[in-house]
Parts: sequence; C-alpha cells; structure tokens
Amino acid sequence: MNFVKDFSWEKGISVEDFVARLGNVGFQSVELKNASDIFTKMKLNGSKIFLTFTSNMVTSGLRGFFAQLVKLGMADVIVTTIGGLEEDIMKSLGEKFSITSFNSDDLALHEKGMNRIGNLMIDTQAYLKFENKTQEILKKLYDKKKRWTPSEMFKEIGLMLDDENSLLYQAARKDVPIYCPAITDGAFGFHLYLFQQKHKDFIVDVVGDFGNIVARYGHDDKKGLITLGGSISKHHAILAGLLNGGFDYAVYMTTARATSGSMSGATTQEAKSWGKIKDDSDAVTVIGDVSINFPLAMIKSLEILSKEGVLNE
Amino acid sequence: MNFVKDFSWEKGISVEDFVARLGNVGFQSVELKNASDIFTKMKLNGSKIFLTFTSNMVTSGLRGFFAQLVKLGMADVIVTTIGGLEEDIMKSLGEKFSITSFNSDDLALHEKGMNRIGNLMIDTQAYLKFENKTQEILKKLYDKKKRWTPSEMFKEIGLMLDDENSLLYQAARKDVPIYCPAITDGAFGFHLYLFQQKHKDFIVDVVGDFGNIVARYGHDDKKGLITLGGSISKHHAILAGLLNGGFDYAVYMTTARATSGSMSGATTQEAKSWGKIKDDSDAVTVIGDVSINFPLAMIKSLEILSKEGVLNE
Amino acid sequence: MNFVKDFSWEKGISVEDFVARLGNVGFQSVELKNASDIFTKMKLNGSKIFLTFTSNMVTSGLRGFFAQLVKLGMADVIVTTIGGLEEDIMKSLGEKFSITSFNSDDLALHEKGMNRIGNLMIDTQAYLKFENKTQEILKKLYDKKKRWTPSEMFKEIGLMLDDENSLLYQAARKDVPIYCPAITDGAFGFHLYLFQQKHKDFIVDVVGDFGNIVARYGHDDKKGLITLGGSISKHHAILAGLLNGGFDYAVYMTTARATSGSMSGATTQEAKSWGKIKDDSDAVTVIGDVSINFPLAMIKSLEILSKEGVLNE
Amino acid sequence: MNFVKDFSWEKGISVEDFVARLGNVGFQSVELKNASDIFTKMKLNGSKIFLTFTSNMVTSGLRGFFAQLVKLGMADVIVTTIGGLEEDIMKSLGEKFSITSFNSDDLALHEKGMNRIGNLMIDTQAYLKFENKTQEILKKLYDKKKRWTPSEMFKEIGLMLDDENSLLYQAARKDVPIYCPAITDGAFGFHLYLFQQKHKDFIVDVVGDFGNIVARYGHDDKKGLITLGGSISKHHAILAGLLNGGFDYAVYMTTARATSGSMSGATTQEAKSWGKIKDDSDAVTVIGDVSINFPLAMIKSLEILSKEGVLNE
Repeated sequence: MNFVKDFSWEKGISVEDFVARLGNVGFQSVELKNASDIFTKMKLNGSKIFLTFTSNMVTSGLRGFFAQLVKLGMADVIVTTIGGLEEDIMKSLGEKFSITSFNSDDLALHEKGMNRIGNLMIDTQAYLKFENKTQEILKKLYDKKKRWTPSEMFKEIGLMLDDENSLLYQAARKDVPIYCPAITDGAFGFHLYLFQQKHKDFIVDVVGDFGNIVARYGHDDKKGLITLGGSISKHHAILAGLLNGGFDYAVYMTTARATSGSMSGATTQEAKSWGKIKDDSDAVTVIGDVSINFPLAMIKSLEILSKEGVLNE
Repeated sequence: MNFVKDFSWEKGISVEDFVARLGNVGFQSVELKNASDIFTKMKLNGSKIFLTFTSNMVTSGLRGFFAQLVKLGMADVIVTTIGGLEEDIMKSLGEKFSITSFNSDDLALHEKGMNRIGNLMIDTQAYLKFENKTQEILKKLYDKKKRWTPSEMFKEIGLMLDDENSLLYQAARKDVPIYCPAITDGAFGFHLYLFQQKHKDFIVDVVGDFGNIVARYGHDDKKGLITLGGSISKHHAILAGLLNGGFDYAVYMTTARATSGSMSGATTQEAKSWGKIKDDSDAVTVIGDVSINFPLAMIKSLEILSKEGVLNE
Repeated sequence: MNFVKDFSWEKGISVEDFVARLGNVGFQSVELKNASDIFTKMKLNGSKIFLTFTSNMVTSGLRGFFAQLVKLGMADVIVTTIGGLEEDIMKSLGEKFSITSFNSDDLALHEKGMNRIGNLMIDTQAYLKFENKTQEILKKLYDKKKRWTPSEMFKEIGLMLDDENSLLYQAARKDVPIYCPAITDGAFGFHLYLFQQKHKDFIVDVVGDFGNIVARYGHDDKKGLITLGGSISKHHAILAGLLNGGFDYAVYMTTARATSGSMSGATTQEAKSWGKIKDDSDAVTVIGDVSINFPLAMIKSLEILSKEGVLNE
Repeated sequence: MNFVKDFSWEKGISVEDFVARLGNVGFQSVELKNASDIFTKMKLNGSKIFLTFTSNMVTSGLRGFFAQLVKLGMADVIVTTIGGLEEDIMKSLGEKFSITSFNSDDLALHEKGMNRIGNLMIDTQAYLKFENKTQEILKKLYDKKKRWTPSEMFKEIGLMLDDENSLLYQAARKDVPIYCPAITDGAFGFHLYLFQQKHKDFIVDVVGDFGNIVARYGHDDKKGLITLGGSISKHHAILAGLLNGGFDYAVYMTTARATSGSMSGATTQEAKSWGKIKDDSDAVTVIGDVSINFPLAMIKSLEILSKEGVLNE
C-alpha cells in the first residue's frame, strides 16, 4: 500500500524529483504521477503511441513540445483538429501569438483585429497570410494528384515547411501520420472549398484515411493512448484502438467532467465497458489544465527514457 | 434594473411560469431565463436557426425533442457528430437504450456486452444490427450516384426511416440539412470504409458540404445560433456564421469552462472578438447540464411562440 | 430496468410532468428526477430533514423558497453560513439586491458602492443599515441573558422580524433550529466583536450548539439530508448525522467536483465509506447549478406531498 | 506585450526553469507563472502573508509543505478549517494516511473501517487515538485558564507536539496565529462538547478571535493573500483584509467555478468590486488542482527568495 508523505521543497529541485514526490501528495498529483509512469511503461514496452490533442493546445506553446515529442519518438500516430494544424503552419510562417487576459474587452479586441482564445490572441492578419500560403500549397498538391487523404496532404505540407518546432515538419520527417477526421472544420476547409470550386476533380478522401488509421496497427501490436482534451481527436483515436482490440495503456488528461456523459469527459474507467481500453490495461484520467499537467508528467518520463537510451536523441 | 425576487412554489405551476420566475432568482437561473428569451426573439425576428449538439445528447432522450423542434420549425440547420446520427438510426430500428449508474462496474458491463455512456448504456447487439442496415443503405445510395456530400446522404437516409421521433426523419421531411464535418468518426465511418474498399469510385465529398453550409444563408439573413455542448458541432456552425458576418442571436449551453481556452468552453463573450457573433447581438452562455437546461429554456419559448402562432403545429 | 424515452413538449406542461419526463432523458436529468423521488420518500417516511445551503443561495431568490419550505414542514434542521443569515435580515429590512452580468466592470462597481456576487449585487448601504439593526438586536439579546448559542440567537432574531419570506422568521415560528458553525465569518462577526469589546461577559457559545445539533435527533430517528452547495454547511450536517448512525436519505446538489478531494465535491458514494450515510440509503448526487436544479426537483416532490396531505398548507 | 513561445524539454530541467517557461505557454500555465511572480513580490515587498487552505489539503502531503512555508517565513497568518488541524495532530501522533483510487468500493471500505477522502483514506482507528489525545489536551488547557480563543488553543497545542512537519508545531514556534472560524465543525468539536458537558465554565471564545485577526495588521501594512480552495477559510481571510483596506497582492487557487456565485468560485476580479483586494493590486486566479499547482508555483518563488536571502533558512 502507498502512503501520503509530507511534501517539502529542496533547493534546485528538478521536475523529475518534483513529480516523483507528487506521487505521495494526494488527489490529482497522485494521478499525474501515475500518468507519468504509464508514459514510461508504454514506451519501454514498445507500444505504438497514439497522441491526440485539441486545437487550442497548438495555439499554446505546447506546439513546440509536440514537435519535440515526435522527434524523440514518443508519438507514432497523431490525431487532432484542423485548427491546430492551421496554427502550426502560421507559426512556421513566423506568426507570433500574443498573451492577454481571460477578462479582455472583446469588443475592443474585435476592433483591433485580435481574435481571442482564452488568454491568447491571434491577429486577423495571420489568417490572410495563411490563405495565400494555402492556395499555393493546394495548387502543388493538385499538380501531383487529384485524390488525397488528409494524412497524405499533411505529410506533403510538412515536407514544405522549414521549422524544427513545427509539428507538421517533424511528423513528415519521422513518418508519423497526422489524422484529422474533420478536415473542413476551419479556415483550411474554406480554402479547400474555394479551390474545389475551380477544380471539381480535386477530392479529399476522408474515408480512405479511416482505413489508414485502422490498418496501421493491428490486434497484436501493443498500443498506448495519450489524449489531451476531448472532442473528436480523442474519440477518433479511441475508435481506431477499439477496432484493433483496445489499448494496453491509456492516459486521459482533460478538464471535462464525466457527469454529462460527453466523450470529452468520459473516463478511462468508462472506456473499459466498451473494450476501448483493455480490462487489464494501465490507465489513468488526470483532471486539470493540460498546459501544466502534460509537460509536467511527460518530462519525468522523458528523463527516465533518456537514461534508458530509448529516445531518438 | 432587474432585482432578485423571492422564489415560491404555487400548486400546479407550469414550466412556463417556473422559467419566468427563474429570471429573478440569480446565477445560472437568470442566464437560463435570458436564453429562453433569446430563443423567442430569434424565431420572432425570422432568423435562420442553427442548432448544434454532441452525440451524447442523441443517446439521451433529447433525441425526440430535437426531432420535435425540427418539425415545429425551430431549427433550419443542424450540425452534429456522426455518433448521434448512428444512434438516431438505431432507435428508429427499435433499439432501446437503458439507464444505469455513473458508478457502474465497467468490467462487468463489458462482459455483458453493455457499453456505457455516463449513466446510459447501449447494447453491443445494436451495433451489429446497425452494421447490416448501413451496408443496405450504402448500396442504395451508391446505386443512385457515386459522389455524395454528407448532408445529401443524411437527407436520403432520413427519407428511408419511418419514425416520427427520429431527427433524420423529420429533417429530411422539413428539408433541414444535417451537417456532420467528421462523418468518419464512428461506426458509420468504418462501414463507409468497408464499402469503399469494394467500390473505389464511391466518394464522400466533405469539402462540398462546407460550401453548402456557408452558402445556405448569407450576410443579409438574420441568423441565430444554439449550441448544446462543445466540440466540432459547435465550432462548425460558428465558423459558417463567421464567414457570413456573424450571428445576431446566440445561446451557448455547456458544462465546459472557459479557463482552458478550448472551443467547447469558449463563451459568447470571447466569440465577439472574432466577429463570430455580432457586437450588438443578444447572446448568453448557460453553464450546466444540457439535459435539464435546454428543454427547460426551450419549452418556455415554445409556449410563447405557440401563442404567437409561429410554430408549425 | 429503466429505458431512455424520447422527450417531447406538450402545451402547458407542468413542472411536475416535466421532471417526471426527465427521469427517462439521461445524464443529470435522471439524477435530478431521482433526487426528487428521494425528497418525497424522506418526507413520507417521517424523516427528520436536515437542509443545508451556502450564503450565495440566500443572496439569490431561493431565500423565499427556503422560507416556504420551512413553513410547509420540509425542513426540520437548517445549517448554513452567517453571510446568508445577514442577507436574510437585510431583505427583511426591505433591501433589494440587483441583477447584473458575470462580466461586470468591477472597478466601476467598486466606485458605485456595488458589491458583486456572481451576477447579483448588494449595495454597500445595505451593510450600514444592517450594522445599526445588529447593534440594536445584540443589545436586546444581552438584556435577556449573557451566554447564547448561535441557534438560540437566530431564533430570537427571527421572532423580531416581520417578513413571511424570511428564513429566520419562518424558522423561529416553526421551531426549526438554524445552526451556523462559523458565526463570526461575516459582518455579523464584526458586530459581535464590537459589542463584546464593550460587554466582556457577552458569550457566544458555539460548543453548546454542537451539543444541540447532535442531541436533537438520535440513532432511531429516520434522517434525511439535503445539501445545496458545499462548504461547512454541508460538512456540519453530515457530521451531526454521522454521530447519530448516518442518514437514511441523502441528496447532494453541487457544482463542485469530486476530483480534488474536497468536502464540497465529495459524493454520496464517498460518504458511505464513513458511514455518513447508511449503506442501504437512498442517495444521489446531482451536479449543476442549485438555482435551477433544486426548485425543479423540489417542486415535483411538493406537488406529490401536497396531494398526500402531508404538507403544512 | 508577451508572446507564446514553443515549449521544449531540456535534460535535467529544474522546477524553477519549468515554471518560467510556462509563462509563455498559455491558458492556466500563464496564470500559474503569474501567481508565482506575485508570491515573490509579496514577500520582497514585506507584505504580511495570509495563507488559507481547506482540510483536504492537510489530508494530503501538502501538510508538510505548509509547515515548511511557515518555518521559512512565507506565512504570517493561517486560516483553515478544523478537520485539517485534527489531521495535522493525527499525523504528529504517527498516523499514516493511505492512497487509494477515486473509484473505490465504498461499502467494502466501510467494513474495513477506512474512510475515503478522494483518493486518500484515513483509518477509523486514527480518530480513536485522536479522541484520547484531545481529552488530555483539553484538560491541560482547562487547568491553565477557562476561556480560550481558538488561535490561543492552537498555539498551545502546537507547543505540545513534537513533529517538524507539523503545521501546528511550526506555527506555534514562529508565532504564526492559526484562525479557525468553525472550530466545532469536526471531531474536535465533538470532544469540546463532551469536555464542556463536564466543565460548564470552559469557554471557546470565537468572537475574541475575530478581534485578533482584524487587529493583527492594519490599513498601513502591506498585505498579501494566498487562498487554496474555497470555503470559509478563504472567506474569513478576505473579510479580515477587507476590514483593513483590502489586500495588495492576491492569489486564488481553486477548482471551483465563478458561474454559481459561490465564495469558493469567486475570482480576484469580483473581489475588487468589494474592495476585498485593492483596485491596483497584483492579483490572479489559477484554476486547477492545488496539489499540483501550488507547490509548482511556490517552489519557483522559493528558489528566487532563497537567492535573495529573505527566507528563514
């Protein structure tokens, strides 16, 4: 049995030590430490790791961390929404997102052309530059072939970028597929529509990508799942895992609660009734802001995995 | 200025009176009353009403209410996720979903083939029947033509159903389009994939539907938005509105919080910085379980609109 | 087994019918219906009903509803915090609280002397009038005797008021004790302090009141618990119940979540590990805003109890 | 203006560096970094620091951290609830609290005499030992004098303990008063009651302590506030500050939300309408689990303050 221990600070304490101590504090700190241990296990046991996150996390500085994780070999499959991929491209084009307050004057921001996402902001100008870039990209894709699955498109786009902190850039180079089941749900969708208006034979084959995500790893592969936030990114990865016998390891990190029956708030416990994650899996749900909890838990794992020599460093 | 009034019960009180009194209670009860007033205004002012909801609400008994609202003319555009549409079909086929506890033994449920969604359950058998039905449906669609947008498919499917409580059934008959930007994110996606394996020329054109939702109503149309829960259903409708000058009326109902910068938790206030909803719009965010708050607020509005004679009764 | 049923609106629907239908909708609507049934059972089975709530609910219009419930015989013991009792007195003195927005400009409010509580406001003037009244009250109490338990004080104060919508007024007349374990935690505490500065022998005996709440009902009494919000109001009633063998019926209504281990978020499930509520009790936790959920669930119960003739009407 | 920066891991990263980077990530990570900066400022500017927390945090391993902070001079006034002080004593007596799961079988725990608090457990035996100790303590106090304020009692109790990780022990030695406005709301209250039954002249003077907390620091003292969780601990410190002109610095850390108008969820923004914190104060609200966020933010501050030589090391 594990016991509560008095937490204390020691000068110069590392994140690794800090998270280790959280394991004896209680409440979500214990769950966070467990999440970190599961990250370590899934990698050491050779699992194929599915990493999912919502767009707002790419708006945030976690974008660079996701790219680093792909580079280090901590993600084999990515599932996300198009908004985040758009912003990854914007940032690759040099766009800077600014920090504001949750209590901003939104009418004043609107006049200034600043679009708020929590306590972050994106300049409307960024969307205009993105539009030009996108039409240029779509032209190149179209010249190659007429029918694309989203994951093929994102790989091609990643190869066009030149930014080591870009998720698309790193994923393309590491051959980590990026699935995006709702590819039209953003500015990119609008640009696809405009492009298709002129090129009726240009086809985005979302059905094909379903085949890709389901076929990529089978029942015999060990599979680990990391879901950050909820929404379809989370659901889509879970669905792919379910169709292949369920996950062996799972960490859900979210602020959503289970009490309304939403997918976003669904726990690793509920997932077992479906076989989404295996009965005997290592699984944990950590409640809280991903912008804090995820890097905290993951860094402790990276420190260990680095010592074990299993990261692509 | 509006003041707090002591709430009291009177024998036989109606929902209409109850919600009216909530307007002087405080906290979310006030916001709920405001939401109800906005529902009434958007209809009386001839707005095109966009209604969005997540799958779990179709799992719940709200499914019949959504169908009723479509029939009454309270929704002109629907945006949702595929899971809910699958379940609408299952229910049309006679499937019954059962009620359990949030604290169920999920391993025991898994053995019994019961899949939990909060305090509801779907029998695995339902998915098997659904699979057969879907392949039959896809065959019929394919025989008609080879390239379909999701909204076209759902209209066609709705016409095949025979259940007045079905959302697909009512929407098809009232010509209310159902948009589903992530059509592959569910069992239906898997069946589409299996079907496409055998019929490579069968194409689901999600890009085309983006054009449909954007083109359906323009800058000059008054537009009202009702979002229940978050996720891409919410985002997609907002995006369509943004591209057409923003909404004149908006009600967001959710349990998600704004503090993590997610789309699900984003408030009507934040939306104004983007122009997603107009600066001078009537807009409110109601925090709480949609399974209670939405029918409560909507019924008060229906009672008034019925007296005004603007419902399709 | 209970099944999901399609919800639908019927013209003129009553709150009683509405809540009955919620029982087949799903998620929190089901829990709310269960809560309503437990209210009915606890009354019909002759339980002593402990009702607890936090101050903000008295700030809201629920204050009049609490008074009505006491009058009808739906509460035998009240536990709350001093802020609410102060505001009950203010309202009895004719003070009006106003309704504003959650997004108010707080610096501007501060200049105007308006103190915000969510989307409600109390004028600073109300505290000044309250101060005068309180010193007058304390003088009268002191003239009677020197040592008072809080519950004795509140009964005496209730008898001095003349407002049927006042909780203190109704509780005094129905001999329903009001316990307030943190009597100094508000403006009243400050006035007690000022008074005691001049009258050193004036003693507020909080320990005595612990005896009163524990001794009032014993192991053999059926006991029901209704906690609205969290904090010490909730804890104190639970503690009193625990020392008397636990509650037979319990409904917790709150927005707090269980994931941080707080008393406010603690569920009826967790309470069973302590014996706070009995193993075989009827118990439910309803998540959501009490300003909506409590009157909704309670009204359905009142309608039934009224027909049964067990209310003091 | 501050901008989002790509977060990345570096081998052996310290907590100090980690939190510094969070300042450019977004959402709650930014607020957490701001909280850390405010901790630093309040200490460097010589503020009197009010630290409040709820009982569950003392159940957790934060108890030792609180003791360390008192020892280091990071808290000048403590406000908390009695449950936590009871558990501080239990731990000083050698009691070990164990770690379990949020999804425990509560009926089984009840049979084993294990009382659950989230994912922690306290053995019923601990309460029995505590009872004996408490009667012994009360006897000693009574022999000294008959009328005690709670803060006097806790100082005396702290001097009787022999555990450097104890909050009561450190507070007594550093002359940091511990205020507990609801001293009877726990097992200790029951023991006070039993003791007073035999010693009618034993008086716990809660009113006296209100004078103590209000008089301790005046309008001219710089005052800083750190509230962890909500409830009366939070409210009581705020009230004391309000009566002395408001706080100059304030950090609220909580999981409660502002949308229900509760004190627990009230933000630093709302506090400004009351003058609870000054218009021009440095103030921030951080949403999330205190068991993670508080030590994280505080450690970064301690590292800086240690270099500045202002801690009692």
